[in-house]
Amino acid sequence: MEKISKARIKWIRSLQQKKVREQEGVFVVEGEKMVLEGLASKLHTLVALLVHKDEVAIIPQEFRDVALSADTTEMEQLSGLKTPNKLLAVFKRPSLQSTYSSFELALDSVQDPGNMGTILRLADWFGINRIVCSKETVDCYNPKVVQASMGAIFRIQVVYTDLLGYLPDAKRPVYGALLNGENYRTVSYKPDGILLMGNEGNGISEQLIPLITQAVTIPRFGAAESLNVATATAILLAEVRKDD
Amino acid sequence: MEKISKARIKWIRSLQQKKVREQEGVFVVEGEKMVLEGLASKLHTLVALLVHKDEVAIIPQEFRDVALSADTTEMEQLSGLKTPNKLLAVFKRPSLQSTYSSFELALDSVQDPGNMGTILRLADWFGINRIVCSKETVDCYNPKVVQASMGAIFRIQVVYTDLLGYLPDAKRPVYGALLNGENYRTVSYKPDGILLMGNEGNGISEQLIPLITQAVTIPRFGAAESLNVATATAILLAEVRKDD
Repeated sequence: MEKISKARIKWIRSLQQKKVREQEGVFVVEGEKMVLEGLASKLHTLVALLVHKDEVAIIPQEFRDVALSADTTEMEQLSGLKTPNKLLAVFKRPSLQSTYSSFELALDSVQDPGNMGTILRLADWFGINRIVCSKETVDCYNPKVVQASMGAIFRIQVVYTDLLGYLPDAKRPVYGALLNGENYRTVSYKPDGILLMGNEGNGISEQLIPLITQAVTIPRFGAAESLNVATATAILLAEVRKDD
Repeated sequence: MEKISKARIKWIRSLQQKKVREQEGVFVVEGEKMVLEGLASKLHTLVALLVHKDEVAIIPQEFRDVALSADTTEMEQLSGLKTPNKLLAVFKRPSLQSTYSSFELALDSVQDPGNMGTILRLADWFGINRIVCSKETVDCYNPKVVQASMGAIFRIQVVYTDLLGYLPDAKRPVYGALLNGENYRTVSYKPDGILLMGNEGNGISEQLIPLITQAVTIPRFGAAESLNVATATAILLAEVRKDD
């Protein structure tokens, strides 16, 4: 197994910056459980695989040729964590494929990393395999969200694009969560539909509203001003999947 | 309006400690919006009301006799926040009333304050007026949860008790969220039912399981290991309310 070079260390360290990760179109995963799950899933192309020189045995045989070994000091330099792990991997982010037509989720400016993590786990539970996010949506390839996703990030393609262009081009039913729509339980959800959820405070942006083909609403029985976006997504996805 | 005394300042400051708040059976609310909401709701008995001496006009007429005024230095001493507010109130916590028979939520050792806040807002949305918590459940009268509840704390009685004694005494249907129960959509929920939700990692404790009269399960369609407890509560409460 080759040893990691100084240049490679420098490059991986630079990925601790959001801007660099985005420019390079990659994301970083740390820790044995998560890295092995990422390697197994094959949803994302592997860009780099680093292993502590004394732990080479934990890497599956098929990846030993591409892995690079590092000593304790080098692992510390590479890691974004206080206590560096035995394994670190860099994967390529997925790109938007236009042939996709299963039911999917679209997020318009969801801001809170905690909500993003919850929505990822939800999508994973309900077998939603793709989430299309507006460019203003929180970065789900942020290391904290990646680690909090409990592996969902390796089973769901999350892509960032301009929803204003994407939604009309998709030519698919768009179900938008609004306050004045039809009761979500009486709507029939098409298998190629897109469920559009809005920002925590402002809901779905005004310019996207005309692109909604069916507004859906969760009726309120009490006095709360609003439902949390992850909570509303949970209720709607459970309904979409009811007959499956 | 009377001025606050040194002894009263000392007592309110002591409520910044969880143990003292619990012993005294009270909770503290800060800020104009929240305090006025608490005064208006009348769900909790007012124990003390403090106002900055220059802001007396914001207190509703009926509460002016009981309010105490404080100067800027005193408000700073009273407040648990970095920037003290114009208003601070101390309310009594509700106690468990045995005559209650509307549909309610029971929480067994839910630990995360964020989950507790989300569940409070959810209960508020779905018109659930009482939550009965095991003594190990996170304190929802913690100042952070109170502020994050967006007023739900003033519309929902949250009581802490021993569920092992409470559930059998209630003689009501107990719907427990488990992994091997009946599909939650085929269950018929009685109006006096209790929905029991368990701890984030361990679910419902073993000794409570025999007290469940109907186990309910949200089917999984993907690969996620679990659903977040607040998310699962959302899906189940939406179902309970479907025919209302």
